[in-house]
Amino acid sequence: MKATVYEGSKTFNVIEKEIEQPAVGEVRIKVAYVGVCGTDVHIYHGMMDKRVNIPETIGHEMSGIIDALGEGVTGYKVGDKVVVRPLDDRKVKPSDKGFNHICEELKFIGIDSPGAMQEYWNVPAFTLHKLNDNTDLKLAALIEPLSVATHDVRLSGLVAGETAVVLGGGPIGLLVAMVAKEVGANVIISEVNETRIAKAKEMGLNAVNPMHIDLVQYVREQTEGRLADVVFEVAGVQPALDIMTEIAGIRGRILMVAIHGQKKEVDLFKFFWKELKLIGARVYEKEDYEKSIALITANELPFEDMITDVQPLSKVQQVFENIDNNPDGMKVLMDCQL
Amino acid sequence: MKATVYEGSKTFNVIEKEIEQPAVGEVRIKVAYVGVCGTDVHIYHGMMDKRVNIPETIGHEMSGIIDALGEGVTGYKVGDKVVVRPLDDRKVKPSDKGFNHICEELKFIGIDSPGAMQEYWNVPAFTLHKLNDNTDLKLAALIEPLSVATHDVRLSGLVAGETAVVLGGGPIGLLVAMVAKEVGANVIISEVNETRIAKAKEMGLNAVNPMHIDLVQYVREQTEGRLADVVFEVAGVQPALDIMTEIAGIRGRILMVAIHGQKKEVDLFKFFWKELKLIGARVYEKEDYEKSIALITANELPFEDMITDVQPLSKVQQVFENIDNNPDGMKVLMDCQL
Repeated sequence: MKATVYEGSKTFNVIEKEIEQPAVGEVRIKVAYVGVCGTDVHIYHGMMDKRVNIPETIGHEMSGIIDALGEGVTGYKVGDKVVVRPLDDRKVKPSDKGFNHICEELKFIGIDSPGAMQEYWNVPAFTLHKLNDNTDLKLAALIEPLSVATHDVRLSGLVAGETAVVLGGGPIGLLVAMVAKEVGANVIISEVNETRIAKAKEMGLNAVNPMHIDLVQYVREQTEGRLADVVFEVAGVQPALDIMTEIAGIRGRILMVAIHGQKKEVDLFKFFWKELKLIGARVYEKEDYEKSIALITANELPFEDMITDVQPLSKVQQVFENIDNNPDGMKVLMDCQL
Repeated sequence: MKATVYEGSKTFNVIEKEIEQPAVGEVRIKVAYVGVCGTDVHIYHGMMDKRVNIPETIGHEMSGIIDALGEGVTGYKVGDKVVVRPLDDRKVKPSDKGFNHICEELKFIGIDSPGAMQEYWNVPAFTLHKLNDNTDLKLAALIEPLSVATHDVRLSGLVAGETAVVLGGGPIGLLVAMVAKEVGANVIISEVNETRIAKAKEMGLNAVNPMHIDLVQYVREQTEGRLADVVFEVAGVQPALDIMTEIAGIRGRILMVAIHGQKKEVDLFKFFWKELKLIGARVYEKEDYEKSIALITANELPFEDMITDVQPLSKVQQVFENIDNNPDGMKVLMDCQL
C-alpha cells in the first residue's frame, strides 16, 4: 500500500509499505478521501516538529470504508462507510470533569499518532462514526471540520433570529457560517480576501470586506442597533480581536475559534461594560459529529462548493506547495486510492 | 441641610442648602450612611471629570429612611428604611435586549446625577428597595457593593463544592469571597497586601499571597488537579490577567469584575485549549439586590468586619485623603447626619 510520510523540512515522501492487520479493538479502514487541514499545513511548515513524531503519516479529516475488523470489535462490519473522530481520550482523569474531548492527556490521532494520508489506516473502533451507505465519501471528508463548526455554534447558544458575525472566511469560517445560517440566524462573514468573499457569495452567504466598509456601522444597520448576538473569531489576527468587542451587542457571545499562539491585546473594558462573554471552543464532542453527519447526509447546504481541488495521494508534496501559493483556495482533498 | 460637593482638583466642600421637596414620582430620603466606593475615589482623583457635572454631590452606596413622598408614589411610607439601586434606566431601547441594568443610555445616579453624600437626597421611587425595620443601617450601606458581588457570583454559575479563586482582596474581592463561600464553594483569595490578607483571615476566609507561594501549584493541590472552577478577576492588574488563565481548570469560568481602562494582554490560547469562558459582569440586577438584602438582614456573614471607619459627613475631604494614604483600609462609611 501507499503511505505519505512527513519528513520535516517541508518535505513529504510517498512510500510503499505492508498492509497491517488491525490490533485488538481496532479496525482497518480503506481510506477514501483526506482533507488538508490548517493544522496539517502548520505541521508542513515545521511549526509542530516538537509534537509530531517524525517521520510520520499525518491527516485527520477523512472518510473511508471498513476493510477488516480486529478482535473484539462489534457493531461494525467490513464495507461500512465510516469517519473517524480523531480524539484518543483513553487517559481521561477525574480532573477533566467529564470533558473528555479536551482532557489533559488527550492524544490527537493524525498529529500525536499516525494519520489518514495513506491507503489503509488502522484506528481504534471507539473513534468511528458510521455513515449511511449512500453517503458521498468526498463530502464525508468534510465531517471533521464541519464538526468544529457545529461545536462552535452549539457552544455559542445561537438561536433563530439572532445575528452572527463570522470574522474570517476560510474553510472553518464558511462552515461556521453555513451551520449558523442553518440554525436560522442572520449571518455576516467578514473577510479581506476578495476571492474568498466571491466564493462565500456564490454559496449564498453574505460576506463583506472590512477594509472597504465600516463593519461596526454595517452590523449596526443590519440589526437596528442591536449589534451582533454572536461573533465567531476565526481569523486569528489582531484586527479581528480589536473589532470583535466593537461589533458584539449587549450580552453578546464571542466564540474563540482561532488559535492565538501568543498573548494578544483584548479590550476587557468592553467585556465589563456590555457584559460580553468570551467562549473558548476546541474540537468537538460526539453530538457535534452526529449533527455534522446528519447535515452531510441531508446534503442541503453548499458543501460541494467547499471542495476546490481533489488530488491523488501521490501528489502530496505538490498539494502542500500549492496551498502555500494559493491563498484563495478552500478545501483540498486527497484521493487515497490514487 | 448639609451637602458635600466635589469641586474638581481633589477638593470636596461641605455646603448648607435648602431641603427640597421631592418631585412627582420621587421620595426624599434622610440619608443614614454612605460608603465610599472605588469609583468615588476615582472621581476624587479627577479621572472622571468629563463625566461628572462639577460641582456635584456624589455617592451611591447608601442607606436611609424615607422622609417625604412626592406625588404619585405608592408602596412606600415616611419612616421606611430603604436603599437605592442607583441605576436610571428610563431611556431603555429595544436594542438593550431587556438588559436594562447595562442599557446603552444608562445613567448612574451619584455619578451622572446627584448622589447620596448629603443629609437629604431626592431619588425616583423606582430605584428603591425596602428594608426590614430592624435592619442595621450601617450594614445596609454595604448592600450596593454586596450586590456587585451577588451579581458576579450569580453570573458565574458557581455551585456548592466548586472551587473559586478571587484575585484581589479589596472590598469587592472580600464581598465576592463571602458570597461565594455562602454558596458552598471552596474559596481562595489571592492578595499581595499582607494587612488585607490578615483582615480576610480574621473574617474566616482563606487568603494567600501569590508573591510568596506558587498560586497555580497551591490551587492544583487544593483541588486534586482540577484547578479553579471559577476565577473572579477583581485586581485589575496585568499579573492577575496572566494568572487567571493558568489557575482556571477545564471549562473554567473567569468573571471580569475589574475595570481595565486600556487594552491588556490575554492568553487566548488557554481559552481555546481548556474551553474557558470569560464573563463580563457590571453592576447588578433587581434580584441581586434582593439577594444582598436577604444576606444583610440575616447578618450571618462577617459584614461588620468590612467597615473599618465611620466618619461624619463634614469630614469628607479628610476621608478621601485618608483613603489615599491608607491602602490597608477596607470600607469607610460617612454618617450623613453628623
